[in-house]
Amino acid sequence: MRTKQQWIDGIHKMKPNLYIGGEKIDRKDERLIPSINVMGKTFDLAAMPEHEDLLTATSHLTGEKINRFCHVHQTVEDLHKKQDMTRMLCQQAGGCIQRCMGVDALNAIYTVSHEADKGNKGATEYHENFKKWLKRFQSEDLVGCCAQTDVKGDRLKRPSQQPDPDSYLRVVEKKSDGIVVRGCKVHISEAAIADEILVTPTRALMEADTDYAVSFALPGDWDGIKQLLTTHNYRDRQYFPKGFNAGSCDSYVVFDDVFVPWERVFLCGENQHGGILALLFALFHRHSYSGCKPALGDLMLGTCALAADCNNITKAKHVTDKFAEIIKVTELAYAAGFTASAMGKPELYIPGAGFRPYGPGNMIPHSIYCNVGRCLTGESVFHEQEILAEIAGGMPATFPYEGEFVNPDTRDLAYKYITRSPHMSPENQAQLWRHIGDIAISAKGGCSMYGALHGGGSPVMEKIAITSQYDIDARRDMVRKIAGMTEE
Amino acid sequence: MRTKQQWIDGIHKMKPNLYIGGEKIDRKDERLIPSINVMGKTFDLAAMPEHEDLLTATSHLTGEKINRFCHVHQTVEDLHKKQDMTRMLCQQAGGCIQRCMGVDALNAIYTVSHEADKGNKGATEYHENFKKWLKRFQSEDLVGCCAQTDVKGDRLKRPSQQPDPDSYLRVVEKKSDGIVVRGCKVHISEAAIADEILVTPTRALMEADTDYAVSFALPGDWDGIKQLLTTHNYRDRQYFPKGFNAGSCDSYVVFDDVFVPWERVFLCGENQHGGILALLFALFHRHSYSGCKPALGDLMLGTCALAADCNNITKAKHVTDKFAEIIKVTELAYAAGFTASAMGKPELYIPGAGFRPYGPGNMIPHSIYCNVGRCLTGESVFHEQEILAEIAGGMPATFPYEGEFVNPDTRDLAYKYITRSPHMSPENQAQLWRHIGDIAISAKGGCSMYGALHGGGSPVMEKIAITSQYDIDARRDMVRKIAGMTEE
Amino acid sequence: MRTKQQWIDGIHKMKPNLYIGGEKIDRKDERLIPSINVMGKTFDLAAMPEHEDLLTATSHLTGEKINRFCHVHQTVEDLHKKQDMTRMLCQQAGGCIQRCMGVDALNAIYTVSHEADKGNKGATEYHENFKKWLKRFQSEDLVGCCAQTDVKGDRLKRPSQQPDPDSYLRVVEKKSDGIVVRGCKVHISEAAIADEILVTPTRALMEADTDYAVSFALPGDWDGIKQLLTTHNYRDRQYFPKGFNAGSCDSYVVFDDVFVPWERVFLCGENQHGGILALLFALFHRHSYSGCKPALGDLMLGTCALAADCNNITKAKHVTDKFAEIIKVTELAYAAGFTASAMGKPELYIPGAGFRPYGPGNMIPHSIYCNVGRCLTGESVFHEQEILAEIAGGMPATFPYEGEFVNPDTRDLAYKYITRSPHMSPENQAQLWRHIGDIAISAKGGCSMYGALHGGGSPVMEKIAITSQYDIDARRDMVRKIAGMTEE
Amino acid sequence: MRTKQQWIDGIHKMKPNLYIGGEKIDRKDERLIPSINVMGKTFDLAAMPEHEDLLTATSHLTGEKINRFCHVHQTVEDLHKKQDMTRMLCQQAGGCIQRCMGVDALNAIYTVSHEADKGNKGATEYHENFKKWLKRFQSEDLVGCCAQTDVKGDRLKRPSQQPDPDSYLRVVEKKSDGIVVRGCKVHISEAAIADEILVTPTRALMEADTDYAVSFALPGDWDGIKQLLTTHNYRDRQYFPKGFNAGSCDSYVVFDDVFVPWERVFLCGENQHGGILALLFALFHRHSYSGCKPALGDLMLGTCALAADCNNITKAKHVTDKFAEIIKVTELAYAAGFTASAMGKPELYIPGAGFRPYGPGNMIPHSIYCNVGRCLTGESVFHEQEILAEIAGGMPATFPYEGEFVNPDTRDLAYKYITRSPHMSPENQAQLWRHIGDIAISAKGGCSMYGALHGGGSPVMEKIAITSQYDIDARRDMVRKIAGMTEE
Repeated sequence: MRTKQQWIDGIHKMKPNLYIGGEKIDRKDERLIPSINVMGKTFDLAAMPEHEDLLTATSHLTGEKINRFCHVHQTVEDLHKKQDMTRMLCQQAGGCIQRCMGVDALNAIYTVSHEADKGNKGATEYHENFKKWLKRFQSEDLVGCCAQTDVKGDRLKRPSQQPDPDSYLRVVEKKSDGIVVRGCKVHISEAAIADEILVTPTRALMEADTDYAVSFALPGDWDGIKQLLTTHNYRDRQYFPKGFNAGSCDSYVVFDDVFVPWERVFLCGENQHGGILALLFALFHRHSYSGCKPALGDLMLGTCALAADCNNITKAKHVTDKFAEIIKVTELAYAAGFTASAMGKPELYIPGAGFRPYGPGNMIPHSIYCNVGRCLTGESVFHEQEILAEIAGGMPATFPYEGEFVNPDTRDLAYKYITRSPHMSPENQAQLWRHIGDIAISAKGGCSMYGALHGGGSPVMEKIAITSQYDIDARRDMVRKIAGMTEE
Repeated sequence: MRTKQQWIDGIHKMKPNLYIGGEKIDRKDERLIPSINVMGKTFDLAAMPEHEDLLTATSHLTGEKINRFCHVHQTVEDLHKKQDMTRMLCQQAGGCIQRCMGVDALNAIYTVSHEADKGNKGATEYHENFKKWLKRFQSEDLVGCCAQTDVKGDRLKRPSQQPDPDSYLRVVEKKSDGIVVRGCKVHISEAAIADEILVTPTRALMEADTDYAVSFALPGDWDGIKQLLTTHNYRDRQYFPKGFNAGSCDSYVVFDDVFVPWERVFLCGENQHGGILALLFALFHRHSYSGCKPALGDLMLGTCALAADCNNITKAKHVTDKFAEIIKVTELAYAAGFTASAMGKPELYIPGAGFRPYGPGNMIPHSIYCNVGRCLTGESVFHEQEILAEIAGGMPATFPYEGEFVNPDTRDLAYKYITRSPHMSPENQAQLWRHIGDIAISAKGGCSMYGALHGGGSPVMEKIAITSQYDIDARRDMVRKIAGMTEE
Repeated sequence: MRTKQQWIDGIHKMKPNLYIGGEKIDRKDERLIPSINVMGKTFDLAAMPEHEDLLTATSHLTGEKINRFCHVHQTVEDLHKKQDMTRMLCQQAGGCIQRCMGVDALNAIYTVSHEADKGNKGATEYHENFKKWLKRFQSEDLVGCCAQTDVKGDRLKRPSQQPDPDSYLRVVEKKSDGIVVRGCKVHISEAAIADEILVTPTRALMEADTDYAVSFALPGDWDGIKQLLTTHNYRDRQYFPKGFNAGSCDSYVVFDDVFVPWERVFLCGENQHGGILALLFALFHRHSYSGCKPALGDLMLGTCALAADCNNITKAKHVTDKFAEIIKVTELAYAAGFTASAMGKPELYIPGAGFRPYGPGNMIPHSIYCNVGRCLTGESVFHEQEILAEIAGGMPATFPYEGEFVNPDTRDLAYKYITRSPHMSPENQAQLWRHIGDIAISAKGGCSMYGALHGGGSPVMEKIAITSQYDIDARRDMVRKIAGMTEE
Repeated sequence: MRTKQQWIDGIHKMKPNLYIGGEKIDRKDERLIPSINVMGKTFDLAAMPEHEDLLTATSHLTGEKINRFCHVHQTVEDLHKKQDMTRMLCQQAGGCIQRCMGVDALNAIYTVSHEADKGNKGATEYHENFKKWLKRFQSEDLVGCCAQTDVKGDRLKRPSQQPDPDSYLRVVEKKSDGIVVRGCKVHISEAAIADEILVTPTRALMEADTDYAVSFALPGDWDGIKQLLTTHNYRDRQYFPKGFNAGSCDSYVVFDDVFVPWERVFLCGENQHGGILALLFALFHRHSYSGCKPALGDLMLGTCALAADCNNITKAKHVTDKFAEIIKVTELAYAAGFTASAMGKPELYIPGAGFRPYGPGNMIPHSIYCNVGRCLTGESVFHEQEILAEIAGGMPATFPYEGEFVNPDTRDLAYKYITRSPHMSPENQAQLWRHIGDIAISAKGGCSMYGALHGGGSPVMEKIAITSQYDIDARRDMVRKIAGMTEE
């Protein structure tokens, strides 16, 4: 397992293929430091003995100790630990921990590549190729990201029907030694600082869409890949630093006729498995959300409680009711993930057929519980920000700049007139309102809300998953009996 | 274990002390039959081999096989089974199964009586008395109900401050052989058909309220008890019977200076334990709700799906979205109960001190998860009825009476003009709308909504439990660190 | 103008064509008395000098004073008065006043018949026929109801596509002296006690649906009409009568090959005007809702306030917040209707073309404001019932029957143990809980909720009206300018 | 009436007393330009003949034509025009027009100063002083802002009970020629670019709080005033400018022992009138919200419609339902303001006493309708942002920077891969997503949400106003009659 510094040294050596504001930059650019701070926590904490149980695992491929973010879940306990690891790390980072896309993608590809080979009756070796790739990924302790979302073009048309056929990433050529792909994956979180980009389809695919049923992995600076980058960092602090300077970044990952050697290809043309892969990544990722969203709830609760302290309204009934609302969503989401883990099996729900064995034996969390939990938290994002705004009042929106707390002309007046509670130091009150400004009155805050709403699939996607995978007929039968209806 | 008929024979022998509409009646009155039908299912199904694992348990007192509704939960598995038993039975009964108040009360009294004795350092024998009572309860397979809710009078005043001191049930005299109690417990479900009434306090109690800290159990027809009864049955069917004729009933249980012998007294004067007993019954009962409310969700989903089938709108997106909404609440509530069971311990959360051992070793489900689940479903009651109304349209409200489907003048016209879908027989469509009329356009339906909102404590009570038992300070600390605030 | 008794005498003379529970009955049946009580208020109050301004109008046809429920709105002031009249009467009746369907239908038919004749260039005399009919209706002070809603069959198919072509009422034969119609109108409120039934189409119609574009008026007992009746009355009171015994009724009005003479036909085959007539009745009726729904809000507020008084929680912040919620919906709905009246014009909004003159000059309220108001109140129905349940607690669901308050065995205990507030007499507290039981724990209550949700079109229908009649393009243009987008 | 340039020339001459980021600046600072752009529209458009009717008025003091933002409303028509003027200007500015605080404050002070003098029986000349001040304000076409919100300190304590008595602005000395005030008004929008600051109390005041009952007006750069400034501007655009570059700013306006001459003092010590003044400014300002919030709704609707166009989902039912939701809130808010205007009177609602004449005859909009409208829109702020996020998807959060659309390495790829709809040019699609990024993923966007929630008083304040000014007793009486309760 690597240290944070070793990982940083690795990405510093990558070719500059990041575009930001008209410039081409490499991974040493300072705008990436906050993102690196966050990802770095997954190395730092995994090295601490008190976190070993939660943050590391034993590879089922090599028997070696690895970072849990590189692990294929083998047991129900693994699923529980992944949820708890995610919650703990996000609490420490003050938000998304950013390494889960990698572990969720590798679990999904690991599962589906096995089934695709089985379907192809030995004509392909996707799964073996993936296991080779995975061994190196585990032993070198690499950071992965998942490139799933396509441009999508006209939302009412399928991939093969689009005016521009590149609106979804596709195979444009098959060669003896590999394939050539073209397209662009959008909103790809942390692609700019990942060692490897894992690519999966983004939706169900028909036969006409076989060119779009492709999965592979490539280093983030591979030939032909260009990343159009946006970074989401807090405002710079000049005098009063935050406790932890977190950030994140997203890329439009452009594949401009990129060559992928066969040993890095894990699916190519199997449209049905392509669709399942899209769903399965989403499923593993929604399970991750059962860890991170409760952490976001924890942080939102703590923030609201401190804001209420400042305003001395912590015991008002309409305020504790809001606390209860946040806790309710937080712990229901946690319980949903917990139950999804506890009911995990190496099986997949097939509408009409029920659960059936799927994959080489690794654990898949229960789909319904992953989806109801993620749906609930997705629907709560804006409402929780509203709760914060209600408790905070206007303070975060008009709080004077740092300079006014330093300039001798204004310093004392500034502290005097931002003081509300006599039980918290003016300095701490100021830090709190600055922090709330950072999360509520900022581009980063807006970006987080969009991420929390859409990341891993919006509530509308979970609702489709829920209704297509639930045994509604069994409920019809219950009612038929009670109502005294005959069978038809 | 008894048969349904043996139980019925037992209550038929009880003294008539039920008052309904100005009459005094006994338990043979036909208005009680629908309630008896429901309770009877807990006997009938427990006797079926396929349900033995779920519906029976092994008494930790006697080692004998008993109905699970008489059992003190010994393991996490017991908690899981109690949740699943409740869901299954409610699905079959088309609603509340009515026997859980007894099991929840006995688990609570079992736990608290032990602690009260410990606090009294041997001066009392509440727990031994209760165990004796329980042995008979288990071996005779009795039906218990729980008399908790008091009249409460002025809601802003404590028991001892009320204009009428009998607004909460209290001890008016202590004698050598027992105590005399006065007061009235209201909304007591199934007291009219229960063998035994278990009495617990209804709220936290101060020192001035010691007379109100009392718990005991008495047969439902004990001297001095009068029950003012309401029944909640479906409309009579003349020609087209329902598949299962369910009902329920509630009593104002009046204790008009009732003598209780000491061996039936399980708490008397210990105000702190009285408050805990109130909370603990609520906790066990909210755990029961994690079984029954998902069943209500199952039934609501089935009903909505059939109504949508009738109207041929089952595949419309705004309809499947409503299905997803019901499933979401249902399975989040189930997951909350599942997690509460899995995290069950013989411990109680004491605000400020955290979890500490409590009781003689029996299992207590996790309070936060019990409460968030119950809160969610309580808040969903009216909205789910709205969903049904939206999908059903006006049909249930103006559906012609049974007679019009029999009278030769109107029969053919009636069937012709209530037919919507060509894929369901007119007879079944009619039965469905009648059933929906029964649950949505009826006194019983209104009563069920009030029960589902307030039973086991309204959402407002769960919110108090949630915020008083959650470690909000830990969340404050997370945010302090991230915001860069110093300790104070 | 007639007295209530004159009206009753009139309907008592009608032929018995009402079917209820297998019987054929006439209008003297006691189950109709509560409905008659309500409708009677429109006669009684119109005769009182203090209400003359609001409840009567001057006929534009005859110049005579008529009941406002028989009037074609000539001015903006007429629209305002119709809203205020409706609110006042519903406040007095404790709910729907039941005569608005008639006035809304006659305003719609009056308008559309004029345009249809214009479109037919003199080939038809619908409007003159209607004016003749209307003169009699006004001078004889008749009660009208509107038969709009059809069976609809498969909800995804148009009238002419239905498996059973009678799923929508249609013309089956045209004769020299009239037409023959077949079909059934469902959920027709007060058809059983109306003098005249006004028939309108229920939806937009294509050319293939011309047989369904028909409007006419017939007496409620006309040859060939059978009514399958349901009544919605409160539970009988034996000892403690309500202050006002209201009821309502609905009919399946079956037209079993009914002959309609031409002078009673106001539209026959003009499919486009048929669709407009459907919309226009809905529009006038949604305007009526801007009167009745605020009254329902007034009554709900009063009920909640009294229940809170009983429980002595009237000043608790979470209770006053609920009051504010009810007032907010109530007065927004009133304001919407007020604005719709104030902006009323003899014009209709035609999507794509905007407002254009329509009808012979009578006033049409503004569609957007009618629709947003009705939509809001429709969406609030179940939530307001939830508010009542939250404030009332379980009392209404398990309140002892009247008899227990009379039987000497229980009377004193009953009054003692239902008493909460010391500031309201036990007798009044009992009457209040009985009343809440009547509106919340009853078939009538459930029926009212369905009526308030679906009557005049469910929120889903208002949303279609809103988005199809709003100038969204103008809003696009505003944003294009601000965003710096060019025209395309 | 002045031109925009004349106004700018005026503020450019003011003394530099603005502090921003540690610097002291004057009004020429470029960070103020976007705010000036917005305010400038109120000059530019008032000068256009086509807007004369809406944007100008005739002074009741001088008979001269003045900007409507300087006018005291004399008629119902004035109130209607103020609402419509506000909506129109906000539509053009793409948000808050920023000059309403001035007009709302001057209407409130005009009214209350008259009543205070009356109460003082001639001992004061507040009203005459104010009229003198107002004449100059009108004839010089000045821009006013309103300094109302105080620091408030401990939210559970009244002004005179605060640990720091300066937590609310107060009179620290009375002299023969004027008074000395100390304190700080926070969140004061546009104070930095206003000619005059109008000061009013922020809440109801007890007798002990008389020092806090003070109202006056001062130029923005008056001796002893320091403004701690924050600006809310869009991100700079380098290549693709917006159509209109709007901004706003807020000040902590510090009154550091500031002398106010008597002729500029309009209230000093009348605690009851101080409380009314606080409420009355809020009332006039909530009436302004009935103009601006509908405009925000118009803009949100246009934005959502264009985003839906881009994604080609404009006709999807779940999308049009969202449009309907926005329109519903928008037009209900407009209708509430319209009704408040139409029912305007020179009267004030006094709880317990009802409406009674107040002020010298100027028009006051109806309080209930102002409050229900503002409450509705305040509660909709976050939900409408959620709607936008749902329709937009992730695009605004990760949209590549302008530079990538210029850099030849990436330009074509960028345009290719942001293209969704074939019916809108890629350039326009890019401008749209940048605009949505500006309003949703930005500090300015967050600030606007806080402003829209809290400005003019949060929903919690409107609810207090609603319940304290509504005749709930009249509703109790309606229900008492219907329920058959006797009077007590």
